[in-house]
Amino acid sequence: MSTSIPPEPAFQDAFHHLCCFGCGPDNSHGLRIKSRWASPGVSVCSFTPEPFHCAGPPNVLNGGIIATLIDCHCVCTAMAAAYERDGRALGSEPHILYATASLAVRYLRPTPLGTQVSLEARIRTQTERKTVLDCTVAADGTPRAEGEVVAVLVPSSWNTSA
Amino acid sequence: MSTSIPPEPAFQDAFHHLCCFGCGPDNSHGLRIKSRWASPGVSVCSFTPEPFHCAGPPNVLNGGIIATLIDCHCVCTAMAAAYERDGRALGSEPHILYATASLAVRYLRPTPLGTQVSLEARIRTQTERKTVLDCTVAADGTPRAEGEVVAVLVPSSWNTSA
Repeated sequence: MSTSIPPEPAFQDAFHHLCCFGCGPDNSHGLRIKSRWASPGVSVCSFTPEPFHCAGPPNVLNGGIIATLIDCHCVCTAMAAAYERDGRALGSEPHILYATASLAVRYLRPTPLGTQVSLEARIRTQTERKTVLDCTVAADGTPRAEGEVVAVLVPSSWNTSA
Repeated sequence: MSTSIPPEPAFQDAFHHLCCFGCGPDNSHGLRIKSRWASPGVSVCSFTPEPFHCAGPPNVLNGGIIATLIDCHCVCTAMAAAYERDGRALGSEPHILYATASLAVRYLRPTPLGTQVSLEARIRTQTERKTVLDCTVAADGTPRAEGEVVAVLVPSSWNTSA
């Protein structure tokens, strides 16, 4: 009998309705990030980049990919927090859908390729329709970038409308 | 005898030394954007997304991809402007290399998939080591996002060092 404990499901395991390049769990061309709560209001995500996610230099992670990681990790965290606030199962219908209103990233130093990147998002404020999050990106134990995301509630009909 | 005029080379046609996910001309998994001057200090870029570049909704362009387009179009513009200022051929050695210090994006409304996205970057300030650019993103003639990029000169050795 195995005594191993399976990892807690990620937010995105309940988000199969999202095709997103960054966080859609079924987008085979996407980053397919996995985010989980670390403590109340604080979520974490680990990501191992592919070699083609390089910046100009071949051994550095692309800044746009870093922005995508921050964006998707934070928006998924905002959605997970909204489901929690409403006492609803993650991903249950009608879907709670957030979009990015703004994204700001400060790049502190190069992020190496070939190693795991760790993100930590922290909810700064959460109102009925808007969640503001701070996010840090680290690799090899060193901070590499920090970002701020403003995520806003949008109609769930956005997920199917033109 | 043909009288057709070939399109002006893009900045990135001289940047084969960059493997970048956003702008590396030879990154087969990347966006391979092409940027050109429209007027002094103003550059343009057109990009047609793939279906897998979607946001959560399948018919909307991913915000991280938009951030990547803004970042790479602006940094390539900063590098092209630096070569021009120094009176050097684009891409000539020693390479002039810029990195992103910060990136800020405001998402004004959803950007549709299935149509061309147009970027226009405008150099706000250019000093010896730092270039600040404003960038707009439009589709179907409507503004979709706007961004600001601070690009900084980094040693050309960054392109090969660990």
